[in-house]
Amino acid sequence: MNEHPILDQIQKPSDVAALSFEDSKKLAEELRDVIVDRVSQNGGHLASSLGVVDLTIALLSEFDPPHDQIVWDVGHQAYAYKLLTGRKDQFHTLRKYGGIAGFPKQSESIYDAFGVGHSSTSVSAALGLLRAKKLKGDDGHVVAIIGDGAMTGGMAFEGLNDTGHFSENLTVILNDNQMSIDKNVGGLSRALAELRSSKEYIKVKSRVERFLLAIPLIGRPIARFIRMIKTWFRLFIRRNVPVIFEDLGFQYFGPFDGHNIALLKKKLEISKEINGPVLIHIVTKKGKGFPKAEENPSAYHGVSAFDKEKGVVPSNKMTFTKCFSASMVRIGQKYENVVAICAAMMTSTGLSEFRKHMKLRFFDVGIAEEHAVTMAAGMATNGFVPVVALYSTFAQRAYDQMLHDVCLQDLHMVLALDRAGIVGADGMTHQGIYDISMMLSMPNVTLLSPCNFSELDRMLEWAVAEGTGLIAVRYPRGGQSTVLEDIPSSEGIAPRILRDGKEVAILSLGVMAEQALCAAKALEDKGIFCRVIDIRCVKPLDIDTLSELLHDVTSIVTIEDGIVHAGFGTYLLSVLEKKGMLSSFRNFVSLGVSDQPLTAGDRKTLLEKEHMDENAIIETVLSMK
Amino acid sequence: MNEHPILDQIQKPSDVAALSFEDSKKLAEELRDVIVDRVSQNGGHLASSLGVVDLTIALLSEFDPPHDQIVWDVGHQAYAYKLLTGRKDQFHTLRKYGGIAGFPKQSESIYDAFGVGHSSTSVSAALGLLRAKKLKGDDGHVVAIIGDGAMTGGMAFEGLNDTGHFSENLTVILNDNQMSIDKNVGGLSRALAELRSSKEYIKVKSRVERFLLAIPLIGRPIARFIRMIKTWFRLFIRRNVPVIFEDLGFQYFGPFDGHNIALLKKKLEISKEINGPVLIHIVTKKGKGFPKAEENPSAYHGVSAFDKEKGVVPSNKMTFTKCFSASMVRIGQKYENVVAICAAMMTSTGLSEFRKHMKLRFFDVGIAEEHAVTMAAGMATNGFVPVVALYSTFAQRAYDQMLHDVCLQDLHMVLALDRAGIVGADGMTHQGIYDISMMLSMPNVTLLSPCNFSELDRMLEWAVAEGTGLIAVRYPRGGQSTVLEDIPSSEGIAPRILRDGKEVAILSLGVMAEQALCAAKALEDKGIFCRVIDIRCVKPLDIDTLSELLHDVTSIVTIEDGIVHAGFGTYLLSVLEKKGMLSSFRNFVSLGVSDQPLTAGDRKTLLEKEHMDENAIIETVLSMK
Repeated sequence: MNEHPILDQIQKPSDVAALSFEDSKKLAEELRDVIVDRVSQNGGHLASSLGVVDLTIALLSEFDPPHDQIVWDVGHQAYAYKLLTGRKDQFHTLRKYGGIAGFPKQSESIYDAFGVGHSSTSVSAALGLLRAKKLKGDDGHVVAIIGDGAMTGGMAFEGLNDTGHFSENLTVILNDNQMSIDKNVGGLSRALAELRSSKEYIKVKSRVERFLLAIPLIGRPIARFIRMIKTWFRLFIRRNVPVIFEDLGFQYFGPFDGHNIALLKKKLEISKEINGPVLIHIVTKKGKGFPKAEENPSAYHGVSAFDKEKGVVPSNKMTFTKCFSASMVRIGQKYENVVAICAAMMTSTGLSEFRKHMKLRFFDVGIAEEHAVTMAAGMATNGFVPVVALYSTFAQRAYDQMLHDVCLQDLHMVLALDRAGIVGADGMTHQGIYDISMMLSMPNVTLLSPCNFSELDRMLEWAVAEGTGLIAVRYPRGGQSTVLEDIPSSEGIAPRILRDGKEVAILSLGVMAEQALCAAKALEDKGIFCRVIDIRCVKPLDIDTLSELLHDVTSIVTIEDGIVHAGFGTYLLSVLEKKGMLSSFRNFVSLGVSDQPLTAGDRKTLLEKEHMDENAIIETVLSMK
Repeated sequence: MNEHPILDQIQKPSDVAALSFEDSKKLAEELRDVIVDRVSQNGGHLASSLGVVDLTIALLSEFDPPHDQIVWDVGHQAYAYKLLTGRKDQFHTLRKYGGIAGFPKQSESIYDAFGVGHSSTSVSAALGLLRAKKLKGDDGHVVAIIGDGAMTGGMAFEGLNDTGHFSENLTVILNDNQMSIDKNVGGLSRALAELRSSKEYIKVKSRVERFLLAIPLIGRPIARFIRMIKTWFRLFIRRNVPVIFEDLGFQYFGPFDGHNIALLKKKLEISKEINGPVLIHIVTKKGKGFPKAEENPSAYHGVSAFDKEKGVVPSNKMTFTKCFSASMVRIGQKYENVVAICAAMMTSTGLSEFRKHMKLRFFDVGIAEEHAVTMAAGMATNGFVPVVALYSTFAQRAYDQMLHDVCLQDLHMVLALDRAGIVGADGMTHQGIYDISMMLSMPNVTLLSPCNFSELDRMLEWAVAEGTGLIAVRYPRGGQSTVLEDIPSSEGIAPRILRDGKEVAILSLGVMAEQALCAAKALEDKGIFCRVIDIRCVKPLDIDTLSELLHDVTSIVTIEDGIVHAGFGTYLLSVLEKKGMLSSFRNFVSLGVSDQPLTAGDRKTLLEKEHMDENAIIETVLSMK
């Protein structure tokens, strides 16, 4: 790592404002160096963080947090912001257990105005912050920074609509890193945009209008005529620039070069003086300053630790996502009524292979999980079997659509829930630990949890070919443990014995079979022979088969990678109680995630902390009467 | 009721297409007569249904369902559609148990292309239907009809965005019943719109362009110039009409008079011949044809049975909503940091009184539940205590926002969940039976359920003044039963005894105390003395207090108006198990809603059907060992 003389001087945000133009530019370089260095060691979101370094410097030069409040949409791009707002000494703990979070977090710093993680929340949150300030008579500014991707989420539209309708004094920065502005008009448009947003222009506008409006009889029509001419002129010049934001009530400025700190500062300064909502459209380059990431930003979006010289090397390690990817190609080719749908995550969910082979049956709807599920419901209505691939945590966005548009209508659809269970370094906002309880109360739901790759493949095909209603297949981040890789897949979805034993049964869900099997093995050395049962299907629970598997069992331990008090173990307890079977068991203990936000950390640490690793099972069994 | 000679002739939708213009107009009158007559007897959604009678006739004249598919957003306006698509003989069973639903429902009729109930789903669903048709090579049309209110829901934007991006051949009808078009430009705008959408114009456009494009070198620039001039002209004339839809990739036509059947037919006919997405903007009058409803459409939105001559008479009956309304005024005046937020339902949630007294602290954000919750989270961050009032069923839309933006961030906010539990005639899509399980797995949640008005008032104040995190207060539709009205409120939120007894305890949630108390009274005659415990707070469960109340109890019956296998009873079971207390009870039975879509019906019928009325409790207690 190089030296960072400018960054070293920054103790508080206002120190950024005091920098000379030259030092600002040096600071940007230093920040990029620190970010690349740290992410290459800890992993993290690289390309997007590098893209907004210059914007971050401009923001802290013009705004004064925490008096002014800055809300980052999604928040994975806030590394430079964290470094400049008092967290550079802890930056080495980024995304580690007990360290600083990979996303803004209110409890971490007064400079993190709002906690984020999921997409498209920033405008709503910022509007709330602003309305509260207004009621309190606090004159601080509020700024939301939102990417062009996040802008496709319906919630962002709801926020813009409310803001524009009431002409609230909010500044929204549209961080456009897709270069989607037509280059033919880009130059001209920029020239006009600069003119429009220059201080002089605004002053002139109001001064002339004030003057005209003061003239009786003819003043008002003339002012109206001038406005009309101006509108014509603007619309002509900007005919390829979306005026959608103006329709929603915003004053639109841009597009500007998002890496020109001086220009950005000027625009931000102007925005502070404008009454009513302002949208500043800037264009940035993902990965800016790190050539490898500039060339291939999607490979450097979220990365594991990598060698800075060699760059990110695609891993050959097999993962559940890759297994899903291959299965979908196989299943798609076998069943012509299967369609695949994702929400702006074609590569991350592994559906790019499906698209390669069956382009017409693939649909990427953008960051729009709600729409993804209901659009799929429409396709299901007309005879297709949609497989909607979402990360477990993002599926939360489509709760009502699953319940109202799929389950209540009893449509047949498959939901592939990637990153179910503990996700590790992404932390609290991204844990896939709520899906079981989320879907448990919905009618016409089948909830499957494969323990390894071959089971995932088989269950997906079962879901498509034999299932009914909404079938969710949940599988974790990463690969399968060596303990699980040789377990063959079984027909159907009934529970099955993975390891026989007597008296004590460990009922595991999905990949938690690893902990169950390891515990059983260790307990064998102590003379306790546990039966390990792979539950496979949480709901509907095949209680007849399970009863048979439990016929000589006196103690039950359940283990799941979800919220335990509202998940599988609790559900099983209620089923056993209802069937009058509970009294035949001396012990019943459910292990899983506790009722608290689960912060970042590696899987091993979090399993231990949550008392759901191998040792927790051993301890539980040993403590039983 | 009058005679209906035209309607009597309609056996299938195509009969509508065959009608003369004069008969179409008569049909509209007859439909309005039947709808007013039926709704005055059964209750239902009157104003919106009357508003689209003419549109419905035009749709069925131009489109041919089920080959063509028509998706009604929300669906409460589909009464005329139901009458014309084979259901006029069952129309008297509207919204009754076992009768036809108040909303389109796939299982009810092949003409109901998609099941609806909640807002803003139509574009997504219609796009899915269309994409499926396209893949199958089916050339049928798909039409979505969406109100200007529903258009503010972010999900509609997601659907429009996807449709426009891929230029899908969808027709969206924007049913604008707010008269929000500026009257000054309305006439001119309409004239141009008529010109634009006339068949000749479209033909000319393409013929001229084809001709020009075929000329080498100069043809293309001339065509471009003509397009530009046309755009200028259009933008000039329509400067007050939102071009937002065109930015999203739609061809926009309108606004048109939505009660002019001949005009509508012409426009729909044209839309069928256009490639790519079309948005037809029509203006309708809510309540059209029934003067009382035209004058006061909001009073005739959703109504109970009424006298056609006298009209709807505001009821003096006290309801939970009115109680909430009064409490909010009292609490708002006492605590200056309380703000109230609703999503386009100021009157229905009872917040109009709050607005009257504290306008600056009231926010109606439109149909945008997601934004409502996260905007509130922003206000909570800056020191206010927002009370967000939503119907339980609509709160489902904001699942992720509650979890991700409020609970994980541990912000203090109150969620007033009106219409929790069984809602009756609105049926399956509107039942408030999922909220308990929805919130049970979220951290930092307090879930309160008052049994009567005085408890609601007290709990709301507790939530605002003493609670932490997200506090949901759930209360039902309608009033309090006489059995419950005299129960005084208690301090705090701990469980309490409503009626003492021994051995058997009935633990009731909220207003289910009525069934519990009635059952206890009836059982007393049989010599069984049940203790009735009012749980009050589902989570966190005050198990210490509850243990004391249960110290001499051997059998427990829980009763709740929510999904039972993932609700309070199941949660209590898991807590008792975890505390090692379960073995001290001989019996534990949970009563509540079963795991199936719960259709329409009056509350009494549904309670009986779901085995959760007074008799179910009595039966359960008598069957215990």
